[in-house]
Amino acid sequence: MTWVDLRDRYGITQLVFDEDRTSSKLIEQARSLGREFVVQIKGEVIERASKNPNIPTGNIEVLVEEVLVLNTSKTPPFTIENETDGGEDIRMKYRYLDIRRNPVKDSLIFRSKVSMEVRKYLSNEGFIEVETPYLIKSTPEGARDFVVPSRMNEGQFYALPQSPQTFKQLLMVGGLDKYFQIVKCFRDEDLRADRQPEFTQIDCEMAFVEQEDILNAFEGLTKHLLKEIKGIDITDFPRMTFDEAMKRYGNDKPDIRFGMEFSELNDVAQHKDFNVFNSAELVVGIAVPGGNSYTRKEIDKLTDWVKRPQVGALGMVYCRCNEDGSFKSSVDKFYDQDDLAKWAEITDAKAGDLICVLSGDKNKVRAQLSALRMELAERLGLRNPNEFAPLWVIDFPLLELDEETGHYHAMHHPFTSPKPGQLELLDSDPAAVRANAYDLVLNGNEIGGGSIRIHDASTQAIMFKHLGFTQEEAKAQFGFLMDAFQYGAPPHGGIAFGLDRLVAILGGQETIRDFIAFPKNNSGRDVMIDAPAPIDNEQLKELNLKLDLPS
Amino acid sequence: MTWVDLRDRYGITQLVFDEDRTSSKLIEQARSLGREFVVQIKGEVIERASKNPNIPTGNIEVLVEEVLVLNTSKTPPFTIENETDGGEDIRMKYRYLDIRRNPVKDSLIFRSKVSMEVRKYLSNEGFIEVETPYLIKSTPEGARDFVVPSRMNEGQFYALPQSPQTFKQLLMVGGLDKYFQIVKCFRDEDLRADRQPEFTQIDCEMAFVEQEDILNAFEGLTKHLLKEIKGIDITDFPRMTFDEAMKRYGNDKPDIRFGMEFSELNDVAQHKDFNVFNSAELVVGIAVPGGNSYTRKEIDKLTDWVKRPQVGALGMVYCRCNEDGSFKSSVDKFYDQDDLAKWAEITDAKAGDLICVLSGDKNKVRAQLSALRMELAERLGLRNPNEFAPLWVIDFPLLELDEETGHYHAMHHPFTSPKPGQLELLDSDPAAVRANAYDLVLNGNEIGGGSIRIHDASTQAIMFKHLGFTQEEAKAQFGFLMDAFQYGAPPHGGIAFGLDRLVAILGGQETIRDFIAFPKNNSGRDVMIDAPAPIDNEQLKELNLKLDLPS
Repeated sequence: MTWVDLRDRYGITQLVFDEDRTSSKLIEQARSLGREFVVQIKGEVIERASKNPNIPTGNIEVLVEEVLVLNTSKTPPFTIENETDGGEDIRMKYRYLDIRRNPVKDSLIFRSKVSMEVRKYLSNEGFIEVETPYLIKSTPEGARDFVVPSRMNEGQFYALPQSPQTFKQLLMVGGLDKYFQIVKCFRDEDLRADRQPEFTQIDCEMAFVEQEDILNAFEGLTKHLLKEIKGIDITDFPRMTFDEAMKRYGNDKPDIRFGMEFSELNDVAQHKDFNVFNSAELVVGIAVPGGNSYTRKEIDKLTDWVKRPQVGALGMVYCRCNEDGSFKSSVDKFYDQDDLAKWAEITDAKAGDLICVLSGDKNKVRAQLSALRMELAERLGLRNPNEFAPLWVIDFPLLELDEETGHYHAMHHPFTSPKPGQLELLDSDPAAVRANAYDLVLNGNEIGGGSIRIHDASTQAIMFKHLGFTQEEAKAQFGFLMDAFQYGAPPHGGIAFGLDRLVAILGGQETIRDFIAFPKNNSGRDVMIDAPAPIDNEQLKELNLKLDLPS
Repeated sequence: MTWVDLRDRYGITQLVFDEDRTSSKLIEQARSLGREFVVQIKGEVIERASKNPNIPTGNIEVLVEEVLVLNTSKTPPFTIENETDGGEDIRMKYRYLDIRRNPVKDSLIFRSKVSMEVRKYLSNEGFIEVETPYLIKSTPEGARDFVVPSRMNEGQFYALPQSPQTFKQLLMVGGLDKYFQIVKCFRDEDLRADRQPEFTQIDCEMAFVEQEDILNAFEGLTKHLLKEIKGIDITDFPRMTFDEAMKRYGNDKPDIRFGMEFSELNDVAQHKDFNVFNSAELVVGIAVPGGNSYTRKEIDKLTDWVKRPQVGALGMVYCRCNEDGSFKSSVDKFYDQDDLAKWAEITDAKAGDLICVLSGDKNKVRAQLSALRMELAERLGLRNPNEFAPLWVIDFPLLELDEETGHYHAMHHPFTSPKPGQLELLDSDPAAVRANAYDLVLNGNEIGGGSIRIHDASTQAIMFKHLGFTQEEAKAQFGFLMDAFQYGAPPHGGIAFGLDRLVAILGGQETIRDFIAFPKNNSGRDVMIDAPAPIDNEQLKELNLKLDLPS
């Protein structure tokens, strides 16, 4: 007997060639088939002798009567199995073979399904999908634009959109009061891991709305997706201000599937002679459930982990909560049992837990403890990919201080409106100004963000001024938008979701690459087609360009 | 009484301010409202005194109790009405105001609906929407690529796709046997009227198929769209070979909503002393229904029309078919009544018709008579935008002679497969080779085209050789595809529809511009945002580029 696995998009079916029932010529042919050959077969579906309950076709096999080889194949450079022996690089070079593997194939099909559900939901809600242009105009604001030289307009360039932001606002001015688009966006940034120079957004905008309308509309979309794609009914859709998120989780995209919330310990930790705490702006701790089971060595390793440059803490104070109600801390020299009992009370630590405490500059220490919290949750198995906890983070600051330049820039983008009545604060206390800006967080990932926009030219002019645009710069770059605001622009706002990330998280993954058919590597290269590549001088000349490479 | 029209995306509602029932303050406010102001109103919906049966809200009006001006407006530069006083240029500059007009707004909503129906149908048929990359690699083949300099890869360029052709073929190699995508494509061509540098395709590919499968699948899509969008059931979906279309209509995208089919008259027109006909490769005529009613002056004008440089005929012979059965031609000197009776018989001309005859080089005269046929149909009102006549044109030539260079190039693209057994003809008679290539024609417009592809590396190599690629060039540009064909590529083929054109035709229009939210003008400029535009030297330097403008 000879068995052959026949694989297509829909699964695997076992072919059988049986010496009793199959001609010797056909058996010969079957034996000549190689891995990844493309065949067309005719035969009879029969009950399988040894059934395989793990696959849908495990009860049957096909007794083959005829084989036609449609194409042969060289031996593939890695095994086409769920678990492959191929490394990232070789799989990317032969992405068309990688796509034959279930994990990639299923991810692409999954993405297609999510996109379709997004479109169905938004269409049913009256949103119109409008295609905005890809060849637009470069603006120095924010991250870098990819530019496209124009042959017909000598010496001039288009830019690829970082988002359709201004166009969707113009559609609102144009009266199309509910817009969406699933659209590619482009950003020529130095790529961090898991970023792509081209990425996909679910881009939305609504007119005649307030923040509440937008939150409700996209809470609806998120619930719909969780229901249709994952079969999960979400009833609880909490909201948290940016300030609260920073205080409770040290992070503007908290994972709320688990606890270990921050507790600020300044009041109960700065009254003794421990100078590290006394000199700190913030002393903050978390209670790690069951953490007292860690050995001294394990805790030392945790301390090393927070001291890594990627996290950057100077050290970690811990306090064991023993089963007998006593405490044992790394700072027993300074704090007595009553002090530590207060720490436990405030951090809500139970017997058997471990309290981890960091201290220092408020912003830094929050980021450090947040990193530790996420790491511990990972180790403790608290980040269940099959559990989904969405969260709105609202009331973001309007401006963000660029520590390098000392200038403020827009935290979201320059079209975000300050909260009513806060425009005046822009001069006196810019950092205090809050915006009608919101992020949708899912399982500790920001999957969407948006804002209510400025819709009158004078407020927009004030914003541009505070962001350091001269009037001429503002006019040159956004004149068309300022003009548009003078012709009856309605109040409007919107949101954009990162589709790549959303799909990955719904698919229970943290990396986006398998959900993109032909991704680029960390240098922005497509290693399969070997792009980017030099172009010939003829083509450069037509574009009125010369290379100007560093010598 | 004061009336105000309140307009939003959904229509117009009349507001009424009535001296008896409205406070004088409110009336004052109503009088201060200007055109295109954005207002929020509260009031009571009441029966309208003088009803307007032409609009859905014509039976009611709103007695206003409260007005809140959300934004004021300058006087718009053109009237925001169905019929506007604004010319093309000003409407494009203020496109956001143009979009408020019903003809544009409705076209954009219509497009959104068509796209959604396409997605629904193809998804239900098991097609997976896969996003292919926009930053790809430049190939000198065919029309010009837009290129995108890479900052991170010095001196190298991405290209924007003219179509996702190779990627969709790689998806087939990857086993995703039914793919589609609604996708932007880019072509840096000198723009003819009604072409855009960026345009949208419904791009599709299927594996394990023959031509018949594809024709059936997309006949299904076309029928679905006509049914869902226009409420029209199409039962007849004829097919015609390219050769037949050229012979019967002089055109590979014939409008078959009306007759006036070509009749070749060589046999009955080359036996007399009329040298114009005797020296012609082809003498061909059409019978214009009712054309005998044209005055001599009108016929002379028609002759002038075909002699325009855009058409290029040297002259036109005509023959009146009188009600009494006699004929009167412009060549009575050469042909007698018996001759003309034969012309009438062959062209199927009835009493009252006019026979128009052109002669000359076969390809040229067919194009000229086709232009005349379309022009006459337009004048006779035979091109009814509410009638839809789809047609498959099949069996296209594989190669096309470039008259300038004398070289053959791929008529469709270099991945199109010749018909079985015709590969050998490539050397001996390249023009005779027919391809498994097909176009979908709707009302005289090509709205889609595709082919069965080559799926083995050796045939592809032969094709590249015949298209003038050296082995090195083929490898440099399409090496990844040739590689892919060696790892078990299935037979596959596909089609792409031009969405802009399809939507315009379904919408009963011949121009695509109103169906594109932010179109570019004939110089490839977006006059609203004023793009393309110069970029600063800093940005050029980062891209390792210098301008090299002609001095």
